[in-house]
Amino acid sequence: MARIALVVEYDGTDFFGWQTQQQTPTLQQVLEQAVSRVADHSVAVTACGRTDTGVHAAGQVVHFDSEAKRSPRAWALGINSLLPATFAVVWAGEIGADFHARYSARLRRYEYCIQNRPHRTGLHSRFAVHQRLPMDLVQMQRAAAHLLGEQDFTSFRTIACQSASPVRYMHRILIQADAENVIVRLEANAFLHHMCRNIVGSLLKVGRGECAAEWLGEVLRARDRKLAGATAPAHGLCFIGPLYPPGFSLPDKFQLREILPEHHAGPRMNPMA
Amino acid sequence: MARIALVVEYDGTDFFGWQTQQQTPTLQQVLEQAVSRVADHSVAVTACGRTDTGVHAAGQVVHFDSEAKRSPRAWALGINSLLPATFAVVWAGEIGADFHARYSARLRRYEYCIQNRPHRTGLHSRFAVHQRLPMDLVQMQRAAAHLLGEQDFTSFRTIACQSASPVRYMHRILIQADAENVIVRLEANAFLHHMCRNIVGSLLKVGRGECAAEWLGEVLRARDRKLAGATAPAHGLCFIGPLYPPGFSLPDKFQLREILPEHHAGPRMNPMA
Repeated sequence: MARIALVVEYDGTDFFGWQTQQQTPTLQQVLEQAVSRVADHSVAVTACGRTDTGVHAAGQVVHFDSEAKRSPRAWALGINSLLPATFAVVWAGEIGADFHARYSARLRRYEYCIQNRPHRTGLHSRFAVHQRLPMDLVQMQRAAAHLLGEQDFTSFRTIACQSASPVRYMHRILIQADAENVIVRLEANAFLHHMCRNIVGSLLKVGRGECAAEWLGEVLRARDRKLAGATAPAHGLCFIGPLYPPGFSLPDKFQLREILPEHHAGPRMNPMA
Repeated sequence: MARIALVVEYDGTDFFGWQTQQQTPTLQQVLEQAVSRVADHSVAVTACGRTDTGVHAAGQVVHFDSEAKRSPRAWALGINSLLPATFAVVWAGEIGADFHARYSARLRRYEYCIQNRPHRTGLHSRFAVHQRLPMDLVQMQRAAAHLLGEQDFTSFRTIACQSASPVRYMHRILIQADAENVIVRLEANAFLHHMCRNIVGSLLKVGRGECAAEWLGEVLRARDRKLAGATAPAHGLCFIGPLYPPGFSLPDKFQLREILPEHHAGPRMNPMA
């Protein structure tokens, strides 16, 4: 029995999110079917992050166990031949049995793309959300600073969120802009259900000038979902990928290269989260 | 009667190219329906470049004439409300009657995206063509140099091409690469039918080491389509946009800011082309 890790990427537009549920197809279901066929036995996969319907991934990490003897290249090519064009394995490799795609991750990185110009896009409609009014990036960055560190993110999770604890550690929120787009990059040890999209929805209110930067701190402290902004649309969000501690045989870009502040938040301390 | 210019962008995946023909929907047809509804009379549009089925555009320029009194903003918002999500007006403005989206253009810029890594993409499958083997970018750039200047591009046009002259002026071919992608940028006064894709198909043969850089010069001089590489797939190609001489009231990025070499090639000298 070997543990195999995969890095997969997908355009989430045509899937009902990661996790297998009533509506299909889901990414997990499609991947499990493909992996099971290549393995010649039934395989269950575990992903680092269970993205919502419509959310994309550039670096989702997955693991599964199999008795099949396949080279990494054979896994990747075999699985890709069975996946639709909008879903692909970009890396495969054998990995230690102590690796867990979800619980071993120390940091998760998401990017939200806001197209900030007078008229909507025709070219990137699957990946960007349109915002007509000019955004005040300085105020957005100031507002984001209120969310850094170990915090109770109750105000930014959906009532459907099943995590036992609402505490997460937000390492970084960066507001980056070019001529047409504002990218909000969020890096935390883990995220609650809808947390990225609710934070972005609130940052948009600050960016448009509807709320002051300090308002975001007030929303956080109130621990009341009703006070935050509307959930930003799913299709602007992309899971860039997790970071794991050194020692796992993953591509370099998934290896954590900094010392993170010590904290107690998130799903590793609480496997139910 | 006023002449209106539009800048439009589109994801060409779901259209049968620009020009109205048997298979539908075409971009021209969809745009003419939308413009006609906003104008309240039947409108014919003229585009700078008639892109093929599956080819995208970031800066397609279009003009039409209308008796309707509408502000630029009203044109753009009205038309966009009638276009599908993958097609949008990004700029609209009144322009002199001496402006012609096709014949006034001095330079046309295309980009072809080759994803050059071991495994195919899942995230950008609408916009990039996968090439597994590492590409020799230096040889590709050397090969491209053989195509610069005023040349007879018979070897790189489809037999279905209706242009009266096979002569075009190639100003620039740039091979640009990042960690995962090779972008071929082509800038000419105008392009023959399939010319971009046939040049890219031939550059791919050089990049993979199947042909030497000099081979591309031989192909050009032979004026024989059978000698060039296979036509590269449509979906890797994006029309970045044209450049027009100064004096037209278009966004800055469509204004030609260099003195081009004098030449006699292309559709302006020969309106039948």
